Amino acid sequence: MSHYQFKTAGPLPPPALPADKLRLYHVDMNPYGHRVLLVLEAKKAKYEVYKLDPLRLPAWFKENNRRYKIPVLEVPTDHGDKYLFESVVICDYLDEKYPRNPLHSSDPFVKAQDRLLIERFNELIKGSLECFDTNFVFGSEQILQTMDIFEKELAFRGTNYFGGDRPGMLDYMIWPWLERLYLMRVVDQRKFDDKRHYFPNFADWGDLMQLDDVVKKHSRSPQEYFDYYKNVKTHSMGFYL
Amino acid sequence: MSHYQFKTAGPLPPPALPADKLRLYHVDMNPYGHRVLLVLEAKKAKYEVYKLDPLRLPAWFKENNRRYKIPVLEVPTDHGDKYLFESVVICDYLDEKYPRNPLHSSDPFVKAQDRLLIERFNELIKGSLECFDTNFVFGSEQILQTMDIFEKELAFRGTNYFGGDRPGMLDYMIWPWLERLYLMRVVDQRKFDDKRHYFPNFADWGDLMQLDDVVKKHSRSPQEYFDYYKNVKTHSMGFYL
Repeated sequence: MSHYQFKTAGPLPPPALPADKLRLYHVDMNPYGHRVLLVLEAKKAKYEVYKLDPLRLPAWFKENNRRYKIPVLEVPTDHGDKYLFESVVICDYLDEKYPRNPLHSSDPFVKAQDRLLIERFNELIKGSLECFDTNFVFGSEQILQTMDIFEKELAFRGTNYFGGDRPGMLDYMIWPWLERLYLMRVVDQRKFDDKRHYFPNFADWGDLMQLDDVVKKHSRSPQEYFDYYKNVKTHSMGFYL
Repeated sequence: MSHYQFKTAGPLPPPALPADKLRLYHVDMNPYGHRVLLVLEAKKAKYEVYKLDPLRLPAWFKENNRRYKIPVLEVPTDHGDKYLFESVVICDYLDEKYPRNPLHSSDPFVKAQDRLLIERFNELIKGSLECFDTNFVFGSEQILQTMDIFEKELAFRGTNYFGGDRPGMLDYMIWPWLERLYLMRVVDQRKFDDKRHYFPNFADWGDLMQLDDVVKKHSRSPQEYFDYYKNVKTHSMGFYL
């Protein structure tokens, strides 16, 4: 049973939200929006998704979001609908707002460490962009260095997931980019499989994550990502990244 | 009565912490460390401060902090002393760790908004650096634009402080840079006072903040900041910013 509907943004703003529902403004295939979808799903929030074309943002959307940030979460409040930006801030908000299935550790120190690792993960994101930008050697080095840190962290924690015996906030915050990394399998299956041995814990983690119901709900296949990014590249639509 | 001691880092690492104490590695006059000092004080945590000379970081410090980030909070854990970085992450950690005097709003939406405003405030920080970097026109424009946003936010909230009737996390996170802005009074008292009328709420807020016991504990005078930054400039010690 679906908790969300998909809608496409039109020339008029959507109606105000009922008190128990959220609205996510999302660009299809955007990894930051993917983060929020995972957390909305994990928290079983009631929400709808408004799809945006980043090259044709409606005037009413730009009016409400002067900095054109995406994704945006629309939240009903006593002062009318309000907007939240920044995927990490949005996801932490959802974790506090919906007490069921807490994603952050209840230990403040572990939570702080996870936040630092989420920030550290930005280097893998930068690496992916470098690869995309044809600076492949430098980019893939950044990716491998970051994966090494997460490999060691997982070994140190000695658990299946960063969150313990089930995926937590850190798992979901990094997953969108890891899911996309599997597109390398389409490029060179053998080379991809060889890399597994360097990251045994992290590779097992990836296998488990793919079986997670929340992840499955919003997953795309390596081939879909490959085709998508090939197309983005052809059309130099850097915006979609 | 003082809850902290000052120590200067030597060639050997300091001893392991007792279970009830924290250690802040701090560069004197650094505004990010100033944030942490304010929160340590507001939470009445038991802590000591290790002063670092950023141009002569001890080898043991570099060993534990590969990215040479400052400030660093040393925290005793069951697995030995561990380190936290990033002033905002450290301060959020302290707020969760010590339940007394909660600094973040208990409303997840307000807390998320405050986090976005703390991030938005980075533009004022960038503006200050631009000013320092002699790009004065561009830098002061960034500062004034950011102050305008905070002026309007304070008017909208209709409270003395961003945190309500007492300073909260947002107040303490932005204060270090505002305290330093008063050095403009030393440069041109009349010009500084004229600006007050553009930001009546924010100016009153600044007056009140200066009376706060937590703020007073770590405050420096406009003249001290002026002399300090003049000296930094003369010696091109950009590191100290």
